[in-house]
Amino acid sequence: MSVEAELEESVKYSPVQRMRHSAAHVMAEAVQEIFPDAKFAIGPAIEDGFYYDFELPRPLTPDDLPDIEQRMARIVAGKYPFMRDRWPREKALEYFRDKGQAYKVELIENLPDAEVGIYQQDTFLDLCRGPHVENTGQIGPFKLMRVAGAYWRGDEHRPMLQRLYGTAWFSQEELDQYLWRLEEAQKRDHRKLGRELKLFVLSDELPAGVPMFLPRGEMLRHLMEDYVRETQERYGYQHVWTGHLGKVHLYKTSRHWFTYRENMFPIMKGEQELAEDDAYVLKPMNCPHHIILYKAQMHSYRELPVRYAEFATLYRYEKAGTLTGLARVRSLTQDDAHVFLRPDQVQEEFDRAINLTLEVFNTYGLQDYWIALSLRDPSKKEDYVGSDEVWERAEGALRGAVENRGIEYKPIIGEAAFYGPKVDFMVRDALGREWQCATIQLDFNQPENFELEYIGEDGQPHRPVMIHRAVTGSTERFMAMLIEHFAGAFPVWLSPLQVMVIPIADRHIEYADRVAETLKAAGIRVEVDVRGERMNAKVRDAQMQKVPYMLVVGDKEAAANAVAVRLRTNENLGALPLADFLERIADRVRTKSQEL
Amino acid sequence: MSVEAELEESVKYSPVQRMRHSAAHVMAEAVQEIFPDAKFAIGPAIEDGFYYDFELPRPLTPDDLPDIEQRMARIVAGKYPFMRDRWPREKALEYFRDKGQAYKVELIENLPDAEVGIYQQDTFLDLCRGPHVENTGQIGPFKLMRVAGAYWRGDEHRPMLQRLYGTAWFSQEELDQYLWRLEEAQKRDHRKLGRELKLFVLSDELPAGVPMFLPRGEMLRHLMEDYVRETQERYGYQHVWTGHLGKVHLYKTSRHWFTYRENMFPIMKGEQELAEDDAYVLKPMNCPHHIILYKAQMHSYRELPVRYAEFATLYRYEKAGTLTGLARVRSLTQDDAHVFLRPDQVQEEFDRAINLTLEVFNTYGLQDYWIALSLRDPSKKEDYVGSDEVWERAEGALRGAVENRGIEYKPIIGEAAFYGPKVDFMVRDALGREWQCATIQLDFNQPENFELEYIGEDGQPHRPVMIHRAVTGSTERFMAMLIEHFAGAFPVWLSPLQVMVIPIADRHIEYADRVAETLKAAGIRVEVDVRGERMNAKVRDAQMQKVPYMLVVGDKEAAANAVAVRLRTNENLGALPLADFLERIADRVRTKSQEL
Repeated sequence: MSVEAELEESVKYSPVQRMRHSAAHVMAEAVQEIFPDAKFAIGPAIEDGFYYDFELPRPLTPDDLPDIEQRMARIVAGKYPFMRDRWPREKALEYFRDKGQAYKVELIENLPDAEVGIYQQDTFLDLCRGPHVENTGQIGPFKLMRVAGAYWRGDEHRPMLQRLYGTAWFSQEELDQYLWRLEEAQKRDHRKLGRELKLFVLSDELPAGVPMFLPRGEMLRHLMEDYVRETQERYGYQHVWTGHLGKVHLYKTSRHWFTYRENMFPIMKGEQELAEDDAYVLKPMNCPHHIILYKAQMHSYRELPVRYAEFATLYRYEKAGTLTGLARVRSLTQDDAHVFLRPDQVQEEFDRAINLTLEVFNTYGLQDYWIALSLRDPSKKEDYVGSDEVWERAEGALRGAVENRGIEYKPIIGEAAFYGPKVDFMVRDALGREWQCATIQLDFNQPENFELEYIGEDGQPHRPVMIHRAVTGSTERFMAMLIEHFAGAFPVWLSPLQVMVIPIADRHIEYADRVAETLKAAGIRVEVDVRGERMNAKVRDAQMQKVPYMLVVGDKEAAANAVAVRLRTNENLGALPLADFLERIADRVRTKSQEL
Repeated sequence: MSVEAELEESVKYSPVQRMRHSAAHVMAEAVQEIFPDAKFAIGPAIEDGFYYDFELPRPLTPDDLPDIEQRMARIVAGKYPFMRDRWPREKALEYFRDKGQAYKVELIENLPDAEVGIYQQDTFLDLCRGPHVENTGQIGPFKLMRVAGAYWRGDEHRPMLQRLYGTAWFSQEELDQYLWRLEEAQKRDHRKLGRELKLFVLSDELPAGVPMFLPRGEMLRHLMEDYVRETQERYGYQHVWTGHLGKVHLYKTSRHWFTYRENMFPIMKGEQELAEDDAYVLKPMNCPHHIILYKAQMHSYRELPVRYAEFATLYRYEKAGTLTGLARVRSLTQDDAHVFLRPDQVQEEFDRAINLTLEVFNTYGLQDYWIALSLRDPSKKEDYVGSDEVWERAEGALRGAVENRGIEYKPIIGEAAFYGPKVDFMVRDALGREWQCATIQLDFNQPENFELEYIGEDGQPHRPVMIHRAVTGSTERFMAMLIEHFAGAFPVWLSPLQVMVIPIADRHIEYADRVAETLKAAGIRVEVDVRGERMNAKVRDAQMQKVPYMLVVGDKEAAANAVAVRLRTNENLGALPLADFLERIADRVRTKSQEL
C-alpha cells in the first residue's frame, strides 16, 4: 500500500478514535508485561472506547484490571513515541513467527501487500496500519471496563480469545460523564425496571421474544395507544382491525413471501395438508390486509386520502440472538397506518404525517431527534420501481416537507426502499442514545401489485400511491425507550399508578378509602397501601415504584378533609385540601405535563 | 314395539309437533298427486315446522309450491281421519316393494320389530310410528317455505333427495308472526347488515372464520371493549396483555392439549424442527397465560381476589361448516377474566361477577335472559375433581347468588365442567332468539395443575380457587347479536357514526364543516356529506346507514347558527340551535340512552 493510500485509510479514524487505538496498544503492552507469552490478535478503536483480543495462559478476572491500568498509567506517563516503520512481508512473517504470534502471522498471510505497517511504543511492537497519536502521553484519561470471550475472526470453529474492553477520553470530565451515562443506563435498563415496576414478564412457556404485560405494563400500553389513537383520529385517520393471520398467497401478491420470508414465523401445517398458497401464517405486516379493506369498496378521488390505522400485533421472526427485553421482540404492536392518496397529495400528506409525529414526540417530551431522509441512488435507477418523474416529484416533496421545518436531517443516497423514498425519525433519549421511532415511507409498488384504483374526476380508474407510516414505531420498543428515558418515572398522565394513599395507622384506612374513591371517581388511578408496614416503609416502597404522588393520611388530614402530599422526588408539599390536590393532578393529566 | 313403548315414544312429540308431522303427511299426499312415481323417504316435524324428503322425476321450483299448497288445502278441508294400523313386517315389505318405494323398504329392513306402524289419510299410506292428529282438519294454517337438497340418510355416497320444508301453526296469527320473524331475521342478518353498514369483511386471502373490520366495525369493537373495560375497572379488575402464542408444553400443563386439541390451530413447524413441547401454537385460551402472570409474583391473602382481565384474540379451529359471519369465527376476542381467590370468597366474588354482567346487559338494553346453572351429577362423583365438601359449598354459593336475584334459572344436573360448576347467561334478542353470552365458571383444577399458591394469614402457602369469567362472551359474537338485536340501528353512544351533516348546496359546505368541527371537539363522531347528490338522496343514504342524526344545513341554519335535525326514524325535529342539539346528543351519549 502506498503512503498516500495509507494516509487515506487513516482519515477513517477521527482524532478520538486514533487516541483510543493508541490506548489499545498501551493496554497490550501492559498485558505483555504480565503475560510475556500472551498472543495478540487485533485491537481496534470502537464506539466510546477500544478493545484488544488476547490468548492468555489463564482467564483474566476483574481483579486483574487495576494492575493493568497501573501499568498503562506508567506507560502513558513515559510519553513514549509511537514509532512507525514498514517491513517487507517476509521479515514481518519471520519476526512474528519467531515470537510465536500465530494470529499476527495469519493476519500477514492474508494481506496482499509486499510491505506491512509496524508500530512500536516503549517495549511493544505490533503489526498495525495505524494511525496513532505521537506519543503515549497524548492518551487521555482511560478506564478498563470488562473482559468477554470472543472467537478469533468471529468464527465459532476458531479459538476463543479474551477480549479486554477499555474506554479513553480527552478529558477527565468526558470520562466521568461517560461512566455516569453507563451507570445510569444500567439503572435505567428497561429489563431491570420492567421487573421492579412490575411491567412485563418474559416466560419460557411462550416463544422467545413474546412478552406478556402485567397490569401496570398493560395500563402503560393502553395509555400510550389510547393517546396515539385519539391523536390519529384528530388527524383524519380511521382505525381498522385485521387480525393476526393471513394465507401465504396474500404475502405472495404483496411480495413479502419472496423478500421478507426469513423474518416470517413458520407456516402452520394441519392434518389436512393445505397447498402452500392456502397455508396459514402469522401476519408480519399490515399493508396487504389494509389493502384488502381498501379494495372492499370503490373510492372516488373526493374521498382520498383514505387513512387506515391499526394497533396490530405483528409477528416477526427476529434472530434469537438479537432479542432484547421489549426493545427487540418477535411480537410487536405497530401503530401502523396506510394512506391511499392521489399523487398530487403527497407533499400535503407528508406534512400532515410529520405534524402528527412531532406532536406526539412533543407530548412525550422528546425534543432531541433528527431525520434520516432515504433517497434513491440515481446511478442505479434500474433497482427501483417508478418513473424518474415520479421519483423526482416524491423526493422533492419529502425534502421540501423536511426542510420547511428546520429539523436536523441527513439525506442518505441509496437508502430508499426499492418501492419509494422514506424518512425515519431518530430520537435521542435522556442519555443521548438513539432510537429509531417514526417512519414515513412512500410506496409506488404495492398499488401495482394489488392493482389499486380510485375513480378520478374524469370518471376513469387511476392508480393511487400509498404511504406506510408509524409514529412510535412499536408499542413495545417505544415503551422500552420511555422506561429508559424517564428511568421509570413517567409523567403523571402516563403513570400506571398515579397515587398511593398511605394511612398512618389502621384506623385511618376508612378515610384513605374515601380519598381513593374520590380520586377514582375523577378518573385517577389510585391504590391504598393497607399493608401492616410502617408509614416510612410504605412511602419508600411507593417511591421505588415511581408513583408520582403519595398521600399520607392520619387524624389531622381526616379531620380537615386533607391529604399530606409527598412526591416521588421526595419533595414534601405538606397538607393540601383534597379538592386542591385533585385540581393539581387533574391539571397535570389534562395537559400531559412533565411536572408533578 | 309394544303399544306402551310406542305411546311412550309419542310423548316426545308436543301437540304442535304432532300437528306438524301430520302436515308433512298431507304435503306428501299432495306431492304424490302431482308425481305418482314419487319415492318417499322420511318426513319429520322439526323446530318451527316440518319437511319431507322425496325422490322426484324433476327438480321442484318455487313455482311448484302454490300448487302443492292448494292441494294440501283441499286435503285439510276434507278432514280425512289419520287411520292407524300395524302390519306384519313382511306384509309391509311386500307392499312398499310393489310400489317401488325403495327408501321405505330400506327403513323397514333396518327395523328390528315384527310389526310396523302404518298411517293412512285420504289416498296416502305411509310407514310411520306416529303420532298424528285425529284428522287432517286439525292441521292449522301452514305455508311451504323452500326446497333444498339432502342426501339419503345424510350420507354423501347415497342419492341426493329433494327436501321440501313447510311450517304450520295453530293459528293464523302465530303463522303470521313466525313469517314476520323470519323476514325480520333476514333483514337483520348481521352478515347482510355487516356489508351494508360497512362493518366487516371476510376475505378468501385470510383463513376462513377470521374477519377483518372496516373503520365503522372497528369503532363498534372499540366502543364495546372500551365500555366493558371501564366497567371492569370499576369492579376491581386489572387488565393484562398476553399475546397470541404459547408453546405446546404450556397447554400440556393446563391439559388443554389433551382435552381441547381438536379446536386448536395446527402448530408451527419451522426449518429448525422443535421438540413437540417447544413448538409454537396459537393461544386458544387465556387461562394458562394469566396463571403465569399470577405466578410471576407472590400473593398474600390480603391481596386476593386478584382479577386479571384481557380482551385477547383467541384462535380456535372451529369446524369449517359451522362458521357463520361473526357469530361463529375462528378468531374471537373474549372479554375474558380470571379471578384468583380464597375459597371463602367464592359467593361474594360470584355476586360481583353477576352484578357486573347484569350492569352490562342493562346498558345494552338486554332485559330478557335466563341462567343455565350447570351442576355436578352426584351419581358420578368420580368424573369430577374436588371433594364433596368443596363442591357442595361451591354449588350452594352459585345457587345462592342466582336465587337471590329472582332471575329465571334452570339447574342442569350433570352439565358442570369436570373442574367445577358454572352459570351461563342466555340472552334473548329482539326476535326472541337465544344467544349464549356471559359465563362464570369455578375451577378447582387449574390451581392444582399449576400448583398455584397464596400466603395465608398463618404464613403458610394455600391453594386458591379460580373463576373463569366472560361478560359479552366474545366481541365478535356479541357484535353479531347487537347488529341483529338493533337491526343495525345502534344506540347513539354505540353508533360508529353519530351525525351526518348535510349541506343543502355547495355554498353551505363551509358552515357544515364548522358544525362538524364543533361536534368533533365535543367528542362526537361526525361526517359531512359533500357528495354532489341531492339533499333528499343524502338523507336517505344516511338513514340506510342507520346514522342516528342527520343535520341538514342551508342559508337559514347558517344564519341562525342552527341545524335542522332529522332522525334515522325519519322523525323531523325541525331547526334547533346547534348548542341545544349538542346538549341533546351529549346527554344521550353520557347516559348511554336508547332514545334518539
